[in-house]
Amino acid sequence: MSDDVTLYRGLDGVHIDTSSISSIDGLKGELIYRGYDITELADKASFEEVTYLLWNDDLPTAAELAAFKESLKPHFEVRSDVLDLFRTMPDDIHPMHALRTAASALAAFDAQADGVGDDNVRRIGLSLLAKFPTLTAAFERIRTGKGPISPDPDLSIAGNFLYMLTGEKPTEAATRTMDVALVLHAEHGSNASAFVARATASTLTDVYSAITAAMGCLKGPLHGGANTAVMEALERVGSVEGVEEDIMNTLNSKGGRVMGFGHRVYRVLDPRAVILKEVSHTLAEESGDSKWFDMSLEMVRIMDREMAKKGKEVKPNVDFFSASVYRMLGFPKDMYTPIFAVARISGWMAHLFEQYSDNRIMRPRLVYSGPTGKTFSPVEERS
Amino acid sequence: MSDDVTLYRGLDGVHIDTSSISSIDGLKGELIYRGYDITELADKASFEEVTYLLWNDDLPTAAELAAFKESLKPHFEVRSDVLDLFRTMPDDIHPMHALRTAASALAAFDAQADGVGDDNVRRIGLSLLAKFPTLTAAFERIRTGKGPISPDPDLSIAGNFLYMLTGEKPTEAATRTMDVALVLHAEHGSNASAFVARATASTLTDVYSAITAAMGCLKGPLHGGANTAVMEALERVGSVEGVEEDIMNTLNSKGGRVMGFGHRVYRVLDPRAVILKEVSHTLAEESGDSKWFDMSLEMVRIMDREMAKKGKEVKPNVDFFSASVYRMLGFPKDMYTPIFAVARISGWMAHLFEQYSDNRIMRPRLVYSGPTGKTFSPVEERS
Repeated sequence: MSDDVTLYRGLDGVHIDTSSISSIDGLKGELIYRGYDITELADKASFEEVTYLLWNDDLPTAAELAAFKESLKPHFEVRSDVLDLFRTMPDDIHPMHALRTAASALAAFDAQADGVGDDNVRRIGLSLLAKFPTLTAAFERIRTGKGPISPDPDLSIAGNFLYMLTGEKPTEAATRTMDVALVLHAEHGSNASAFVARATASTLTDVYSAITAAMGCLKGPLHGGANTAVMEALERVGSVEGVEEDIMNTLNSKGGRVMGFGHRVYRVLDPRAVILKEVSHTLAEESGDSKWFDMSLEMVRIMDREMAKKGKEVKPNVDFFSASVYRMLGFPKDMYTPIFAVARISGWMAHLFEQYSDNRIMRPRLVYSGPTGKTFSPVEERS
Repeated sequence: MSDDVTLYRGLDGVHIDTSSISSIDGLKGELIYRGYDITELADKASFEEVTYLLWNDDLPTAAELAAFKESLKPHFEVRSDVLDLFRTMPDDIHPMHALRTAASALAAFDAQADGVGDDNVRRIGLSLLAKFPTLTAAFERIRTGKGPISPDPDLSIAGNFLYMLTGEKPTEAATRTMDVALVLHAEHGSNASAFVARATASTLTDVYSAITAAMGCLKGPLHGGANTAVMEALERVGSVEGVEEDIMNTLNSKGGRVMGFGHRVYRVLDPRAVILKEVSHTLAEESGDSKWFDMSLEMVRIMDREMAKKGKEVKPNVDFFSASVYRMLGFPKDMYTPIFAVARISGWMAHLFEQYSDNRIMRPRLVYSGPTGKTFSPVEERS
């Protein structure tokens, strides 16, 4: 390896392109979607409004929003061939295997799957945005022995998702909480899955290929799988009193990692965590069961204390409080990552619009560190 | 955008890690798999030997090779649930949609799909190496109204693939030609699909997710889809006499690109193209039909002439001569990319072994170029 080669492991600090979708200020703890602060959007906007924003230059007018919602309606339904896939699969698999496979299979039933012109890419984006909640809810119902529920096109994406899961029209409060979670998870720059979507699309392959890739990437415990891992930790601990010992054990073990803390980009508190903490607090008060919220607070307290001893600040990230929020909303813990995907399809598609419109194939280098100048000998002469 | 930020579009020249799998010298036209020159491997080694090499430190001894082949045998068969997927899909889809979906679906039937420890990753690698030819041949037979043929575990991967396609035991010459094509396509550094496999795996998601992502990436016309595009061009031209006009039209059209020429890394002739040119020549002589080979030679002649006028050298790449080779072997042109995948699973897995063994999540940056400081107003007040 020559001395003048710099290795960018993890692509740390490598800027791959310009983008007008979102901006993260890790030092200020700021996340901006096309100029609007995430805190304001989470407080005031619906997931549909935010997706329109991410897919266009600005928030929609009332007429534009109505048209956008209308254009989604024909896409909510998923054909039975694809839902039937879930029936062939064992009940106990990671849901992301099922949903990744379904997203891939949808391509087979789209006669225009392969075109990467902007109109076609946007058409597929609308279709996937509408179908992800349907697929996710259908998978959950099928594996628990219930039949899937057809979407109600008059509900919002958040409301429809809750409806298709339970079969009951959700309360306004539950729908709004779901909406906030979707808005907060919709987009986050060139994180691993959005980057993989862009890199996959950079060969000018189709949208389904790129989104299938992103789903597989999101599944990992270092990315979208982290919210499930947080819940597993909370369940393992079981009580506020058990938090300290569990965290100390994790911190003292080799390679031990307390899930839901720290972020490559944020050096101060992730603004999404601030909002979800409030949501979690509200749900705990409303439900009268504050166990998960209280345990979460205690985890933050112990982590603050331990990190301070090392002169570090390692703050909870978006995955941390989403675990208790999803728990109190009644979702099984292995569905947290699929719910992340239901939201993130919005951001992934925004990145694909940019990538396809001004593409260069991604082809980095590796520095060769293996042997050289070997001479081949026939197999019978090797020893 | 601040002035001191360098954009690495396409990750050009960015070294993402060290690797001991393969080395490309684009100025010398050299490709090395773990110290062995590709020209010698293509001439003398089987695809199994080369895969063993890529997955280990060196070529196998006779005993190691026998054990490796034996370890593949239990994996050739694909369960009918997965093959049945192909029956639900329309006959005229891009085969990569079907194969990407099948690769993803295999995860659902592997109770150990999610582990990323080396032993488990290698177990899944063997399984996918064995199953890709079975899946590819089964898809081709099912869409043409024939039943899939069960693998014969006593044949080589190359021989088995030809057998499962045709139902007849292939000649030694055909098997050897297939073997050469697989060896040449097995590995090529951090090309887009291998890179996407690594980036996907960098969240510590499972092997199936990473391979599914790589398959979707390979499908693109700027990558594995290029060999199909070359054949489409040859069919469109139809005769040696038609080549010049067709190329001139392409070169004179806005954004026109002659498929199968040029490469990000090679500045001189791609050594794989040199070998495939010879293979194509031999097949043309043996079959007595030299049309596709002669047209290919004429394309190279015209491209050389035209590029020389611009002071450039743009040489045929691996995709260029593989088109005529696969045509003469009797494969439908939309199967060329799946055949690429049958070979490249070997290299993808080698990259996954490295990535999982020393991982850092890939999280590059984008430079924000969008609006800032926007103030939210309720939807009814927007105009």
